[in-house]
Amino acid sequence: MKEWLMNEILGLDDVEALARDALKRAGASDRAAASVARSTRAAERDSIRSHGLMYVPIYAEHLRCGKVEGLAEPEVHRPKPSAVRVDAKDGFAHPAIDAGFDSLIEAATAQGIAAMTVHNSYNCGVLGHHAERIADAGLLGLCFTNAPASIAPWGGKTPVVGTNPFALGVPDGAGGATLVIDQSASAIAKSEIMLRAREGRAIEEGWAFDATGAPTTDAEAALKGSMAPAGGYKGFGAGLMVEVFAAALAGATLGKDASPFSGPLGGPPRTGQCFIAVETGALSGGAFGARIEDLAAAIADQDGARLPGSTRAAARARTEADGVIVPQDLLERIINS
Amino acid sequence: MKEWLMNEILGLDDVEALARDALKRAGASDRAAASVARSTRAAERDSIRSHGLMYVPIYAEHLRCGKVEGLAEPEVHRPKPSAVRVDAKDGFAHPAIDAGFDSLIEAATAQGIAAMTVHNSYNCGVLGHHAERIADAGLLGLCFTNAPASIAPWGGKTPVVGTNPFALGVPDGAGGATLVIDQSASAIAKSEIMLRAREGRAIEEGWAFDATGAPTTDAEAALKGSMAPAGGYKGFGAGLMVEVFAAALAGATLGKDASPFSGPLGGPPRTGQCFIAVETGALSGGAFGARIEDLAAAIADQDGARLPGSTRAAARARTEADGVIVPQDLLERIINS
Repeated sequence: MKEWLMNEILGLDDVEALARDALKRAGASDRAAASVARSTRAAERDSIRSHGLMYVPIYAEHLRCGKVEGLAEPEVHRPKPSAVRVDAKDGFAHPAIDAGFDSLIEAATAQGIAAMTVHNSYNCGVLGHHAERIADAGLLGLCFTNAPASIAPWGGKTPVVGTNPFALGVPDGAGGATLVIDQSASAIAKSEIMLRAREGRAIEEGWAFDATGAPTTDAEAALKGSMAPAGGYKGFGAGLMVEVFAAALAGATLGKDASPFSGPLGGPPRTGQCFIAVETGALSGGAFGARIEDLAAAIADQDGARLPGSTRAAARARTEADGVIVPQDLLERIINS
Repeated sequence: MKEWLMNEILGLDDVEALARDALKRAGASDRAAASVARSTRAAERDSIRSHGLMYVPIYAEHLRCGKVEGLAEPEVHRPKPSAVRVDAKDGFAHPAIDAGFDSLIEAATAQGIAAMTVHNSYNCGVLGHHAERIADAGLLGLCFTNAPASIAPWGGKTPVVGTNPFALGVPDGAGGATLVIDQSASAIAKSEIMLRAREGRAIEEGWAFDATGAPTTDAEAALKGSMAPAGGYKGFGAGLMVEVFAAALAGATLGKDASPFSGPLGGPPRTGQCFIAVETGALSGGAFGARIEDLAAAIADQDGARLPGSTRAAARARTEADGVIVPQDLLERIINS
């Protein structure tokens, strides 16, 4: 093992190796560790630090406490020509997605559209990276993943769906993505409320409700209540759409019944994912590429506006050249995990 | 023709016949008139008056000015096993959707998932009714339709996408829908801003921006500017997802280039739709129905919350029993249209 303690600026290869080694020490198979470590690298590369190295000690804890089965061998089924179903077997989501990915791409290319569901799974990291991977394969990708419940139906007070993001990856026809949308159903990330609670600071109006369903600016009360959906009832609607695809259609555990993605308690969350891939040529009569170019330019050319995904792309250019700064205490936690 | 002038409470059969007769007089083929009239009936049945009889004089105007080709014969192609592509030929969306619908259901049932795109189309009325129709056929339906641009990218000021709704129809396994989500990307319906402008009233904060991109409460300034997306940048993201499916994937006209859905100018809008239908048994390993029942109960059983689609279902029960009240002046406009 390298002497990580001396480094605080890491290249992306080192980020990936650091994550892979820690996951293997905690009990992940070579394949699972490699797959999750690639996602850690991609998150750090795009400056999505919440899903980067910061998550590695949590993954390691979850391997050790049995929340994730490190040696799980995902099973891939193809019950219909356009349908791929993967059982993650209580392991990480990433190797399960890897296991079915080629079938998904092959099916969508041949049939025009295909779907892959994953059940007995776990959180899948940055959902947009899976959408981008489908776009990199030349297909349009629409992805859903569910999470333990934190958002109540509009007018109610008991959480039913999680922050449940959807992601869209739009291919550029040249092995990359023109744009990537990746957005959760909540007004703000739950991690921001948890941070404020730890620091004893108030949260903004419109972020959360307390356990009685009333709006609150108290971070602790918010954590005992529910997250506000983005755009009121429409945010709940978006989260519910995701729950229908990622949980019900996958035959996975509903967010309201899933164990938390944080902490060692509750056993495997057994949440799910759904990935839809579309071959764009047949359905658009060959017009897709030109329309996307036109649409993307109408956004990117406006002062003050940005194409979804462009912030991540800019970070990528920086970190690939300069590496990432990793706090010494995080490095130590990973090495000792 | 019946003596409509004496009636102000109409049964739903009469609503449908009134719409059908007016559309035929304005130049629609029997098939197109029947298809659009069914949608008018469904809108009045569910008390979605903006898309009910109120729209019939606009449809008639658009038939007469050439914005809609009343005698169009939609063309259905099946370029891949899971892909159906319909050319609406500048006619109404409804008969084009009807023309491909059976192929969509057959393809999805056999393959696991299928998509149908429609181009050279027009607005398709209540999107949720198409999602519900897919659910009634026992499949999960996800639908997209684009509209002339009215929402600017977050931080920009020039509209790029329309109010672009998506709709989800979730089958109940017994020939109906457990829930139907049908929501636009904007904070408020554009018709509400147009109403306020006509009445000289201010609009609420958070509904719209003026032409410089600044928030406004002036309804006239809002109509010259852009609509606010629901939930800020996430509402724009939802509208952009819809634009990618309904316009780019359909090979239809982008919202930024489409002629308006109101008024006689600009020729056919040639906007588009995309419908995804999913056979839920294969992808969920048979678990879909039980999960949906559990999920729906967790919403419907909460005080103050409601299952998406339940307001429409309640209206339906009322209007099927009691009919709908139609203002005399609207009746006269339809009869004279």
